[in-house]
Amino acid sequence: MALADRWLLPDGIMELLPPQARQVELMRRKVLDLYHRWGYELVMPPIAEHLESLLTGVGHDLDLNTFKVTDRISGHTLGVRADMTPQVARIDAHRLRTEGASRLCYCGSVLHTHPANMLASRNPLQLGAELYGHAGPDSDVEVIALMLATLTEVGVQDRISLDLGHVGVFSRLMELCGLEPQQQADYQDMLQRKALPEIDRFVAGLSTLDAQACEWLSALPRLNGGAAVLDRARALFAADTELLAAVDYLADLAARIGARCADVDTYFDLSELRGYHYHTGIVFAAYTPRFGQALAKGGRYDNIGRDFGRARPATGFSADLKTLMDLSGQLADQAEDVILAPAGEAEEGLQAAIAQLRQSGKRVVQRLEGEVDCDDRYRQQLVREGSDWVLIGL
Amino acid sequence: MALADRWLLPDGIMELLPPQARQVELMRRKVLDLYHRWGYELVMPPIAEHLESLLTGVGHDLDLNTFKVTDRISGHTLGVRADMTPQVARIDAHRLRTEGASRLCYCGSVLHTHPANMLASRNPLQLGAELYGHAGPDSDVEVIALMLATLTEVGVQDRISLDLGHVGVFSRLMELCGLEPQQQADYQDMLQRKALPEIDRFVAGLSTLDAQACEWLSALPRLNGGAAVLDRARALFAADTELLAAVDYLADLAARIGARCADVDTYFDLSELRGYHYHTGIVFAAYTPRFGQALAKGGRYDNIGRDFGRARPATGFSADLKTLMDLSGQLADQAEDVILAPAGEAEEGLQAAIAQLRQSGKRVVQRLEGEVDCDDRYRQQLVREGSDWVLIGL
Repeated sequence: MALADRWLLPDGIMELLPPQARQVELMRRKVLDLYHRWGYELVMPPIAEHLESLLTGVGHDLDLNTFKVTDRISGHTLGVRADMTPQVARIDAHRLRTEGASRLCYCGSVLHTHPANMLASRNPLQLGAELYGHAGPDSDVEVIALMLATLTEVGVQDRISLDLGHVGVFSRLMELCGLEPQQQADYQDMLQRKALPEIDRFVAGLSTLDAQACEWLSALPRLNGGAAVLDRARALFAADTELLAAVDYLADLAARIGARCADVDTYFDLSELRGYHYHTGIVFAAYTPRFGQALAKGGRYDNIGRDFGRARPATGFSADLKTLMDLSGQLADQAEDVILAPAGEAEEGLQAAIAQLRQSGKRVVQRLEGEVDCDDRYRQQLVREGSDWVLIGL
Repeated sequence: MALADRWLLPDGIMELLPPQARQVELMRRKVLDLYHRWGYELVMPPIAEHLESLLTGVGHDLDLNTFKVTDRISGHTLGVRADMTPQVARIDAHRLRTEGASRLCYCGSVLHTHPANMLASRNPLQLGAELYGHAGPDSDVEVIALMLATLTEVGVQDRISLDLGHVGVFSRLMELCGLEPQQQADYQDMLQRKALPEIDRFVAGLSTLDAQACEWLSALPRLNGGAAVLDRARALFAADTELLAAVDYLADLAARIGARCADVDTYFDLSELRGYHYHTGIVFAAYTPRFGQALAKGGRYDNIGRDFGRARPATGFSADLKTLMDLSGQLADQAEDVILAPAGEAEEGLQAAIAQLRQSGKRVVQRLEGEVDCDDRYRQQLVREGSDWVLIGL
């Protein structure tokens, strides 16, 4: 690699410089304090661990997205985490072993082999919260409300759209329709691409299916939009109580979220699978008009605990703090006063005066012997007046 | 891997659970705020980048200690950072390009292929501060004082021993003595192991060296201890102004540190190379009697900028925040009150009452429908009295 290229970062790898890094740090604190006040306990899992632990209960996508290395100590394959959720699930299942509900939160760097899209970072600063040990709408409502509170806390000022889906609808339809495995994979792929004409041709070619199944498969990708979607879904799924229960679950959730968070627009998408192979119930995501990707997303993933040998219901969400910073209306306090102090140890009282200013929260830079100053950050200067050290304007 | 082993972490990989994780988070904030008040700007370099960038200007040790992966996008080799100092040097040299002094700080996870010793973590939470663009004792004094202030800030209550060395002494002696490369490597190895009898035998066998050189090589590993070491070194190195200058530099530094930080014991070790292959001037480390390893360490490394194509003097230090937590006398506020609120959306004013408590900084957990509570954290309960929500003791 040429000398000139050594300082270039790999494609999709991003870093934070001043003053953005400090801004992200302050946001990290605000969000983690929010989670703390909601009763969520912070955990700090490692940036790498056994690959099997990182991929237990999750899909092939995450496997492809995980960098692998060989541990020279054990010979085992380690993965650099691409998602912290499985780590937190492992901690709930095996390290904490709480019997009741357990609320955990985290914030840390993850690394992806591929960016999620052309503009996405391969090293997001993932933050999130997870609620284990409770199945039912109460826990889903709580984590969605906390996700929305996160966006408010970091200063996202756009109106938020909340997208709600339920992967149970898709999996129940697959059970009922009896497609071959390859057909099912094809259908799922088209569904995720929302390729309506393709789906219609595909369904038309399914000669073995009854009319009801064909209607469902053809209607599913169209079940997205406002509250009317739920009415259409109820009519369509009238024949199956499990499908109806999923629709009712979403309706209940939306009503309760609406009661708590008046300034959110709720949309439904019953065909949403959101690439989350470990999800088992509702899936949700928050959007703003200004940004093409979800700001934060999550869902229910009751199966992951079983894969760690301890079945626990689970629901939670995550976001990239760097993305949230980009969309935040809050600006770092760049105009913060920096005080310039003269160089030297010897002058009486100088070190004590600097220490006292810093103790009181002031920002003080001490000039270095012979330093050429090209910095215009300084608003005040510490100078000697008689036996005192005083601040004067610059 | 058996199911039962999936949740085990690899040897030497550690994670932080509640309440320690919160404690480390609060320490992180205190330390980064300290650096902020001293005028240091936070940077957040990525957890992985081009291997050449991570290893530019550093020694073979760091290469061996770095996990490597192939970037499927570019085909280049990436490294998972084992040390953040070279990343910060790259940022100073190429991203910021400040002309005057630049003060940077950081805190993030690093990953080592091997633990530094039997008890060391392979994934420290490295924090540190670096001062670029100034050569001379002022900047060395500043970073040492900041390192000592870090230990005070996190609540290390033991008396600190500060070890000072100067790798310029070793490199100047190598210049003057004219050892063969293999002899030099052998001597360096023995020196690092402080293998005195071996060194004496080695020196006795050097028939080609003059008496002065032999005296130096034999005396160097014995030049450690209190201030008297510097007097012995002055007598020993009287023939060479460069060696004398290094000794005087250390004496000046120690006097200035002593004037600033009265409660620190300073020791000298002129044979200390501390495994830091990129150091060029002074090296320093802080110890306490309770802990066998350095709590924090650093030194001057003026060459690293040149290797990035932009020569800048540099000095700085780093520490593992998790180690500092272990040695801190500060305890997490475990007795913090948690308020238990009843389940439900519908009851009038409940959500508003919860929100208000959280807004005021209180920690409130809302019970989930059907939840079996096995938690004794709760000290207060939110209950309805007439039309009001009030707190009662539990």
